[in-house]
Amino acid sequence: MAKKSKNNKKPAAKVSVRDLLRVGPEFDLSAVDARRIVAGPKDKVQALAEVGALEGEVGDLQERLYAESRGGGKRRLLILLQGMDTSGKGGAIKAIDRISEPLGLRIAQFGAPTKAELKKHFLWRIEQKLPTPGTIGIFDRSHYEDVLVVRVRNLVPPEEWEKRYDEINAWEKKWADDGIVFLKCMLFISPEEQKERLLARLAEPDKHWKYRPGDVDDRLLWNDFMEAYRVALARCSTDHAPWYVIPADRKWHRDWLLTQLVAETLREMNPQYPPTAFDVAAEKARVQAS
Amino acid sequence: MAKKSKNNKKPAAKVSVRDLLRVGPEFDLSAVDARRIVAGPKDKVQALAEVGALEGEVGDLQERLYAESRGGGKRRLLILLQGMDTSGKGGAIKAIDRISEPLGLRIAQFGAPTKAELKKHFLWRIEQKLPTPGTIGIFDRSHYEDVLVVRVRNLVPPEEWEKRYDEINAWEKKWADDGIVFLKCMLFISPEEQKERLLARLAEPDKHWKYRPGDVDDRLLWNDFMEAYRVALARCSTDHAPWYVIPADRKWHRDWLLTQLVAETLREMNPQYPPTAFDVAAEKARVQAS
Repeated sequence: MAKKSKNNKKPAAKVSVRDLLRVGPEFDLSAVDARRIVAGPKDKVQALAEVGALEGEVGDLQERLYAESRGGGKRRLLILLQGMDTSGKGGAIKAIDRISEPLGLRIAQFGAPTKAELKKHFLWRIEQKLPTPGTIGIFDRSHYEDVLVVRVRNLVPPEEWEKRYDEINAWEKKWADDGIVFLKCMLFISPEEQKERLLARLAEPDKHWKYRPGDVDDRLLWNDFMEAYRVALARCSTDHAPWYVIPADRKWHRDWLLTQLVAETLREMNPQYPPTAFDVAAEKARVQAS
Repeated sequence: MAKKSKNNKKPAAKVSVRDLLRVGPEFDLSAVDARRIVAGPKDKVQALAEVGALEGEVGDLQERLYAESRGGGKRRLLILLQGMDTSGKGGAIKAIDRISEPLGLRIAQFGAPTKAELKKHFLWRIEQKLPTPGTIGIFDRSHYEDVLVVRVRNLVPPEEWEKRYDEINAWEKKWADDGIVFLKCMLFISPEEQKERLLARLAEPDKHWKYRPGDVDDRLLWNDFMEAYRVALARCSTDHAPWYVIPADRKWHRDWLLTQLVAETLREMNPQYPPTAFDVAAEKARVQAS
């Protein structure tokens, strides 16, 4: 949907949202305030206007990324979204879709693994869905479920999930070296906000299909999930694949932060059109004569 | 991106675009005028406004289709796009993306098959990308290349491609019976319009990556391609998977026609929310207590 912008050189935002949200070695999830306005507009109208204003620039960067791959480039962007039920992963995907080009976007959702998938290594089904060169992939949940719900619910023995953190780091490093730029985002909502969102689903019959009684079972294990998130984010926020925590109680602020993260990352990637691989004058003559 | 509309019962368009564009037994591709305004607005501004106005309704239908699948429904929509180079398949996908929800949309592009794909049946790689229940799939090119470019360029012997029409019809029937609703669209541009679009790509260095000298080779075989299209559309426009030809020289009219086809089809499918599968009062109490 992005309209073409001729100006690729917009001034960078004054603050780096990546610096503000990045998970460092001293990371403390309990200190994150899900309602906090971290940076940028303090009201919804202005925030959504700034999201919309990214459309031309991001569409342009995305086109250049795709063009770069046609010239042999291998770079691509993987936006990975994690969060508790109702944390807004679907809404976040809409925000990214709003500022980007559909042809270069690939969305993959990871539910509970099938029996066939469970027989393979836990990273196998993830690898099938990695974005191809030149595209942007979005993961709605991911291999992190294998150290989150799997850990909280003891779906495998501790010695099994314990070694997965290192496996994930090594696997992400391999793919980062292959050209994947990782943008791993946790959408962080408060338990109070989740309660409101679950009740809203129950209040509207047309939303019942979105409600799973199992969501409440997870909710009752909130502290265990937060501990599993804390460990996963602290251990797997690496230089080649950092984690970011997005305060997500306010949907418009969540969307502003996420789209800034995407725009900052694409600007830094600074993809380039490939050199022209044919004789332009000769091709013009061929087309004219045809 | 679609905003929710509370009103699912918009009046149907006065004309059925499907009736106007459908390929029947007497189909004559040479009689199609690529610049013709078939129905609807005669100017760009109004046409694009009407495309945008479909957003709420289509998003709503799409949500119901997805919800239906969560209740066990198997129906899904497959929008298949074919056309000569520069016919606007990418632009058409943007128009569909504009009126629909990204999470329920799956786009697949089919380029020349890989060596591994060539070793399998020509429908194998297509089957891997069919939309899952509840979603809308878009195919940017498809198995029809196996009776188009393959026929024109003699990539397999005639006795091989000759039997593919029947194979395609049987295969599409099998999947229609399984719940796939097919919307097969040819974007039809004139050779004059293609020449302009190719020259426009050559005139702008940032568009050179989109230009392949092979496009002109295909262009020189225009009449052969049109004959291959004529046969494919006439033989494979069936009741279970009809073909539609969209005059596509005017991009805004192409987008209006295509989005009307999508909206008409989804309205006729009339997907339904599944019945609530849990005790609402009990779940409200559980959430309140949590």
